[in-house]
Amino acid sequence: MQTGRKVYLDYAATNPLAPGVFEAMLPFFSEAYGNPASLHQWGDMARQALDESRAKVASLIGGAPEELIFTGSGTESNNLAIKGLSLGQQAKGKHIVVSAIEHFSVLHSVRTLEKSGFQLTEVPVDKHGVVDPDEVKRSLRKDTVLVSVMLANGEVGTIQSIKDIARVVKEAGILFHTDAVAAAGNIPVNVKDLGVDALSLAANQFYGPKGAGALWLRRGVRVIPLLDGGIQEGGKRAGTENVPTIVGMGKAAELAQKDMPARIKHCIPLRDRLIRGLLAEVKHSLLTGHPSQRLPGHASFCIEYIEGESMLMLLDAHGIAVSSGSACTSRALKASHVLLAMGLSHEVAQGSLLFTMGMDNTTDDIDYVLGVLPQVVDRLRQISPLYHKSTAS
Amino acid sequence: MQTGRKVYLDYAATNPLAPGVFEAMLPFFSEAYGNPASLHQWGDMARQALDESRAKVASLIGGAPEELIFTGSGTESNNLAIKGLSLGQQAKGKHIVVSAIEHFSVLHSVRTLEKSGFQLTEVPVDKHGVVDPDEVKRSLRKDTVLVSVMLANGEVGTIQSIKDIARVVKEAGILFHTDAVAAAGNIPVNVKDLGVDALSLAANQFYGPKGAGALWLRRGVRVIPLLDGGIQEGGKRAGTENVPTIVGMGKAAELAQKDMPARIKHCIPLRDRLIRGLLAEVKHSLLTGHPSQRLPGHASFCIEYIEGESMLMLLDAHGIAVSSGSACTSRALKASHVLLAMGLSHEVAQGSLLFTMGMDNTTDDIDYVLGVLPQVVDRLRQISPLYHKSTAS
Repeated sequence: MQTGRKVYLDYAATNPLAPGVFEAMLPFFSEAYGNPASLHQWGDMARQALDESRAKVASLIGGAPEELIFTGSGTESNNLAIKGLSLGQQAKGKHIVVSAIEHFSVLHSVRTLEKSGFQLTEVPVDKHGVVDPDEVKRSLRKDTVLVSVMLANGEVGTIQSIKDIARVVKEAGILFHTDAVAAAGNIPVNVKDLGVDALSLAANQFYGPKGAGALWLRRGVRVIPLLDGGIQEGGKRAGTENVPTIVGMGKAAELAQKDMPARIKHCIPLRDRLIRGLLAEVKHSLLTGHPSQRLPGHASFCIEYIEGESMLMLLDAHGIAVSSGSACTSRALKASHVLLAMGLSHEVAQGSLLFTMGMDNTTDDIDYVLGVLPQVVDRLRQISPLYHKSTAS
Repeated sequence: MQTGRKVYLDYAATNPLAPGVFEAMLPFFSEAYGNPASLHQWGDMARQALDESRAKVASLIGGAPEELIFTGSGTESNNLAIKGLSLGQQAKGKHIVVSAIEHFSVLHSVRTLEKSGFQLTEVPVDKHGVVDPDEVKRSLRKDTVLVSVMLANGEVGTIQSIKDIARVVKEAGILFHTDAVAAAGNIPVNVKDLGVDALSLAANQFYGPKGAGALWLRRGVRVIPLLDGGIQEGGKRAGTENVPTIVGMGKAAELAQKDMPARIKHCIPLRDRLIRGLLAEVKHSLLTGHPSQRLPGHASFCIEYIEGESMLMLLDAHGIAVSSGSACTSRALKASHVLLAMGLSHEVAQGSLLFTMGMDNTTDDIDYVLGVLPQVVDRLRQISPLYHKSTAS
């Protein structure tokens, strides 16, 4: 069974670096090691690198460099957005609206705010994970101070019509944030076109390094910092800047902007080949998320009568890396709140299987997976009491 | 004037990497790029690396690996300690005690808590920046839930008797945190000897990478997370772990533990040579901080009748990198709260000049500085109205 072949299909968990990203970071681990806050040549070198990265990341999403706050992760960006914007507006009201399929960094940030008197409305999604702008509109109250709906969902790949959702929120004069961590760098994202007030992104979702995120915040919007201390990032995020990873994020953003059409063209056929093949070869399987409005390299399924984790382990023994949901919660072993919100049962949701692909993948990789997976599924179903009970009845 | 010579004496702002640290990080930028949360080989590699780093950093400070929370910076560690511990204890009371010379990541975190009803007592320091344990004892109240006093001050180098302070705090049954960002990795630090409940450190203060900090938290102490989301770091700090920088922190900790005696032996003579030479060569200069209880590579002064920033610029033109206080606030151009708390006047505090040295520095570096500095000072005093007024009177 051990073929020695390795196929990484877990790009949603984290990406390898694109060629050129590490080389851009390299000088900032050696001679250019200064602190950007320092008033000397070493500081100048670091500061200039920060400025250049800020311009590149801002350009990727159509924002102005001075509107960008660098953070340590997509999670930190979402925490800063949800907590910082809500607390900055709490004199106006304490009601927050988010969709039911947000990442836990959004949902749990709201839960924390609930402990200090904020109220939450979760907007439902349809069976494809789509948020209806009219539902958002109906959820708005006089005391609503923030709405947050993600641009694309990392677990099921569905892309929302953020522009339409933002419009109804902005018509009501309410701040709108979108978690674009899974989307930015992978599909075109422009803050002006979208009409949002705040947008989160993370470098390790577009072939950049871990430890580098950003929050784009429209000029003039008030945010209460999460991290107090020095006056870095315009006083909005204290702490010595992680210069090498920020430089890596800048380079990754530059490459993402340039290469996006080629990347999308590479990933969509792989995704569609896997979706077609898997649904044909594996009985009792279903695609999760939207059939067409989905991320280019994203194919997610539920394989009925099997637990996702057991599939992961057997696939891993074949050198195939996949996921059964969000990496952030993979060790919690609970049915995904995203799948449940889309109307799937606990049983079906347990068979979640998520393939996310990128520039290192080939057609051969997909065919290898399509060869291995049906065997794995059959083997697991042979020992699944759930399967025998169901097929016997 | 441009000699081409470069002398970096701003180690307190940030350190270059020790030999071997970058090499340890390298694989985690290339083949070992997985997310530690992922349930496959790529995830296993990353997770194992995290575990090893956790053990190394814990060993540096005498703690248990499972008591360590990795963060993105010393600032984040201090924010998590101050806010997370205070909020975790607020049912007991809302009074916090800190010293007057804490880093802004501690002081401003308390300011933020004051907005939600917490009260602060700032304990004064003596002219050497020393906190008297009896003053701490007198500041304690029935509703005190947290005391935080830094182990060593990054601006004036003074090392506190944390053990004595911790004792009076623990006798009163109150949580004690120490900001050891400037100290850990540079002088022996052992959480058990010190008797503290929580301790902050940062890799870029001991030849490790930027973007890597940690909070050691005694087993069983409750902390409210700053970053909500996934279940990373035992649920205490959400967000995909920055594996390469954490690995770098682990390697830096390992080296710091091994090489500490040699490093101290290298730095103290350089420090003392600079202190002796500067006080002899530059009129109207004084050492700030404690004359002997100070960090090994730390020499801080006030040069009267001159502004620190103007000295920085002229020294930079000679290739010498120094600082005029904390890098985190260098662009705020205010007199240091640390120097004011030690009883220096605003005028004298403006002439703050901070030399912090490390393993790349030599006796020649110090002699070069001692040759250049008196000229720089003379030149600046010639155009200083303050100096002429003072020496004329």
